[in-house]
Amino acid sequence: MSDITMRAATAADHAAVWEILRRVFRAGETYAIDPGISQGDALAYWFGPGREVRVAEVDGRVLGSYYIRPNAEGGGAHVCNCGFVTAEAAQGKGVARAMLAEALDRAARSGYLAMQFNFVISTNTRAIRLWEMAGFAVAGRLPGAYLHPTLGYVDALVMYRSLRTDLAPQPL
Amino acid sequence: MSDITMRAATAADHAAVWEILRRVFRAGETYAIDPGISQGDALAYWFGPGREVRVAEVDGRVLGSYYIRPNAEGGGAHVCNCGFVTAEAAQGKGVARAMLAEALDRAARSGYLAMQFNFVISTNTRAIRLWEMAGFAVAGRLPGAYLHPTLGYVDALVMYRSLRTDLAPQPL
Repeated sequence: MSDITMRAATAADHAAVWEILRRVFRAGETYAIDPGISQGDALAYWFGPGREVRVAEVDGRVLGSYYIRPNAEGGGAHVCNCGFVTAEAAQGKGVARAMLAEALDRAARSGYLAMQFNFVISTNTRAIRLWEMAGFAVAGRLPGAYLHPTLGYVDALVMYRSLRTDLAPQPL
Repeated sequence: MSDITMRAATAADHAAVWEILRRVFRAGETYAIDPGISQGDALAYWFGPGREVRVAEVDGRVLGSYYIRPNAEGGGAHVCNCGFVTAEAAQGKGVARAMLAEALDRAARSGYLAMQFNFVISTNTRAIRLWEMAGFAVAGRLPGAYLHPTLGYVDALVMYRSLRTDLAPQPL
């Protein structure tokens, strides 16, 4: 485990975040995003309205980023949604785990009562394992909802975790 | 059952569609939208980018509207999402049913392989019954994901239906 510094992303991080997004989006294996998305559109998406964006630094290099936002408006605004990306160089350094831990903590402190991932591609087993270890449950399964570039139609999952500590283990 | 005419919505329908949206959104019982949303924001949402908007007319009055759009990008673009609203005066006239039938038909003809509703508030039993009769299944349940104005925290459902007729009854 390396020393990982978590901090708010700024405009100065756009190039580094794009390098990470580019590989992830181009691969088309984990995000329902056009694999040919431009740098401008990708950054506009990641840093979109209502999103708080954080980065994870190891030895002064940005190796991961995540956003947190309300998953819905009105009566749904107490549930947040996050997206996570890591650089290839982040592997084995605990970056994904550190980002998730911070995201859960920040979400709870911000008053969110639950965190939801809307579209987890079922072949993304490493992420699913991490999230299940962190208390997320599969709340839904969407049959064939994702066309994987090499595996064809695969399921997508909806994953959900309560952030209320006063009522554990049942949600909300 | 009255005669229901389905057609593309135009800018001339904005006032009538807003009248319907206003009541539905203000009530805060069926859409995860800020109940205080302005007319401009509501119409920008309903007629947002990538959405095809249709209206249902009865005796020359717009009594319902729906949109259809891809539910995700990239590998998720073969699944569509729709939103439906009806006027109070539409009750008992078969407007919701006619819109759903047209939406399913148009979606299948457009090449979509499935239709997904991302956030069906579990107390919206009339809509859920209609959708289940039309072949939708509850693919997921999000515990306490919606703060209902009078009932408190209630579950939200993810509902899903394959549009492939060649493989019925199993999805995709």
